[in-house]
Amino acid sequence: MDEKPKVILCREGDNTLGERSLELHENAGGVIGTCGKVPLNNIEDLSLAYTPGVAEPCRKIAKKQDDVYKYTMKRNSVAVISDGSAVLGLGNIGAHAALPVMEGKALIFRELAGIDAVPICIDTTDTEEIIKTIKNIAPAFGGINLEDISAPRCFTIEERLRKELPIPVFHDDQHGTAVVVIAGLLNALKITGKKMSKIKVVVSGAGAAGKAIALKLILAGANPEKLLICDSHGIIHKGRKEGMNPEKEDLAEVTNKHVIKGTLADAMQDADVFIGVSAPGIVSGEMVASMASDPIVFAMANPVPEIMPSEAKMEGVRIVATGRSDCPNQINNCLGFPGLFRGALDVCAIDITPEMEMAAVYALADIVKDEELDENYIIPGPLDKKVVKTIAKAVSNEAIRNGVARSFY
Amino acid sequence: MDEKPKVILCREGDNTLGERSLELHENAGGVIGTCGKVPLNNIEDLSLAYTPGVAEPCRKIAKKQDDVYKYTMKRNSVAVISDGSAVLGLGNIGAHAALPVMEGKALIFRELAGIDAVPICIDTTDTEEIIKTIKNIAPAFGGINLEDISAPRCFTIEERLRKELPIPVFHDDQHGTAVVVIAGLLNALKITGKKMSKIKVVVSGAGAAGKAIALKLILAGANPEKLLICDSHGIIHKGRKEGMNPEKEDLAEVTNKHVIKGTLADAMQDADVFIGVSAPGIVSGEMVASMASDPIVFAMANPVPEIMPSEAKMEGVRIVATGRSDCPNQINNCLGFPGLFRGALDVCAIDITPEMEMAAVYALADIVKDEELDENYIIPGPLDKKVVKTIAKAVSNEAIRNGVARSFY
Repeated sequence: MDEKPKVILCREGDNTLGERSLELHENAGGVIGTCGKVPLNNIEDLSLAYTPGVAEPCRKIAKKQDDVYKYTMKRNSVAVISDGSAVLGLGNIGAHAALPVMEGKALIFRELAGIDAVPICIDTTDTEEIIKTIKNIAPAFGGINLEDISAPRCFTIEERLRKELPIPVFHDDQHGTAVVVIAGLLNALKITGKKMSKIKVVVSGAGAAGKAIALKLILAGANPEKLLICDSHGIIHKGRKEGMNPEKEDLAEVTNKHVIKGTLADAMQDADVFIGVSAPGIVSGEMVASMASDPIVFAMANPVPEIMPSEAKMEGVRIVATGRSDCPNQINNCLGFPGLFRGALDVCAIDITPEMEMAAVYALADIVKDEELDENYIIPGPLDKKVVKTIAKAVSNEAIRNGVARSFY
Repeated sequence: MDEKPKVILCREGDNTLGERSLELHENAGGVIGTCGKVPLNNIEDLSLAYTPGVAEPCRKIAKKQDDVYKYTMKRNSVAVISDGSAVLGLGNIGAHAALPVMEGKALIFRELAGIDAVPICIDTTDTEEIIKTIKNIAPAFGGINLEDISAPRCFTIEERLRKELPIPVFHDDQHGTAVVVIAGLLNALKITGKKMSKIKVVVSGAGAAGKAIALKLILAGANPEKLLICDSHGIIHKGRKEGMNPEKEDLAEVTNKHVIKGTLADAMQDADVFIGVSAPGIVSGEMVASMASDPIVFAMANPVPEIMPSEAKMEGVRIVATGRSDCPNQINNCLGFPGLFRGALDVCAIDITPEMEMAAVYALADIVKDEELDENYIIPGPLDKKVVKTIAKAVSNEAIRNGVARSFY
């Protein structure tokens, strides 16, 4: 596997990749399946893996429920769950159409982190039903990864499940994205020599990813007075009436302490950092030119970023990152969720805490050694073999420190 | 794999098997996991199995839902589902404690039939919640195998899901057991030279298995006038008040047409066949001695049968079968569900019909050639390689005949 990601040809509007993906999925019958962990060659094997021998692990667990971590798949399994309401850039395409994405996610869990991840697509968008369904199927799983569930329901669902389930529940579109973004930003700031506590940051997008990025920026030391979040209506601020919701009200409380009003263009004036998790092409060359010196631009609208790297560079941007695999500095969620869950599962954690997420941030950033750091290499490649082990170790240690590791792991 | 099952030492009360099963489960971390179906070695692999390429299968399915069978795991996946309310002989041990059994079942699906089976343990025993939960998680699965759910809720749950889901829903404890029993019985009758339509049959046990056996006996040509079902209160008959429920009322309608009353011992007088899915040791030597000539006894209470084979043989029983692996003629559900689901999935069936189940019965019985048939070999060994392929083919053909195969399979 490559250490530094090789740039592949991926032109916008190139149908070849889609056609090849169809072929791959059709030939293989999807991308994930099951595998026996023990042999089943003779009656004796059957008697141990199944009846009558299997009665013994059942008895043990019936007597002491935590033994489920000792004798079953639960110590290594994650359910990858979506209701199909916010899939990639395709929107609300429903549970069946979401399945290829959940399968792909499960493949990544398996190949990068050795985790047994099962795609589960829920055939309802009713919040209470989703919560109940996930609680009902939780016994076989050591963790729950929520995926592609639209805001604001995703916030409620994750919050409620975190409270009501004794296993980690993690919405990757929120926290996974944020972990990788902050890690990349920390390294970008090392190059430009600016401090997190001093920079002016503009986040474009106030959905799942935008909110989580804003909160993690603050945890990482960003100054809330100099942190502006924008949505399609402009800068979010206390007292704004237009286009608000409970999550944006929260954001208005903890960011933009000087209650600055205006457009995205206004916000970007003299900003040190732009982070986009919003819509294609909404950032112009002028907006970028109005930023402070050595500006950093993470334009992660996918597949077409808020501004293309080439244009940003022309306007003087020092460091550009996108979500695209054919540009340098790909902010790819693969760098977050596999290591996070690996670390949580390794200590049979009951939760993934914000502290564990920040431990992942710092561990991920530190993988890129100072001498390797440059404008085109601020984050490891998504398939870099060092990543999962390094992050997992940091996350496990933090879990123990936070008191969320089960005592017997 | 053996054609004829080798008898292994498995003494009642032998703890070694349980200890060894614990060790197996602990060392392996359960018995089933996941496996990638495509490579994930580089960025290109990632682009095809995941973003951005995966958007294409998603688009296709969003446009035409049946394409989910073309591009995903659904064409080969089964959810193995329990609420832990009737697990083996252990009873209501709950969802977590049921997991080792569901994992073992998933292993058998994988190893015998190449099916990707996922254990799902539902953390409620509320019938409506279970139905709703299963409907909600159905999109990723080509079929649902219900397991170890107590009667009578299992009947409602299966019936409702069969109506409300467009995929096969099959409660193995009912139909799987019955399929294997009838297949074994057909072969036993070949040996004794008696006809199904002429024999007197006593079934002991009126729960999930007992009811399904009774109904399949009738489908196989048994005479309802000469078919008696017994529970712990004795023979079930029209007008009986004691210990009745809707399922037993149904049974009273379709069996015991002469409304015979009495005990199990009364029922067994001059019976040609005894089928037990009830409790250990409830059949005495005398009861067996009172049966007709060349009696057949299937004593499947597990792990201790209604009567031990040795005792039955002493009292003149011609052919004995049990659920035990250390006795000849093991009636093992492994002989039913893998082939049944393989056949259903191969034609993307919307249902498993009674006709498909009977097709499985005849296909299974016919695997044992006339020249191989003998008192100690009326059914193939549970791991016999011929079984799944043969049954699957018959089941697929029947599905097509029944109009339950999807047109595009």
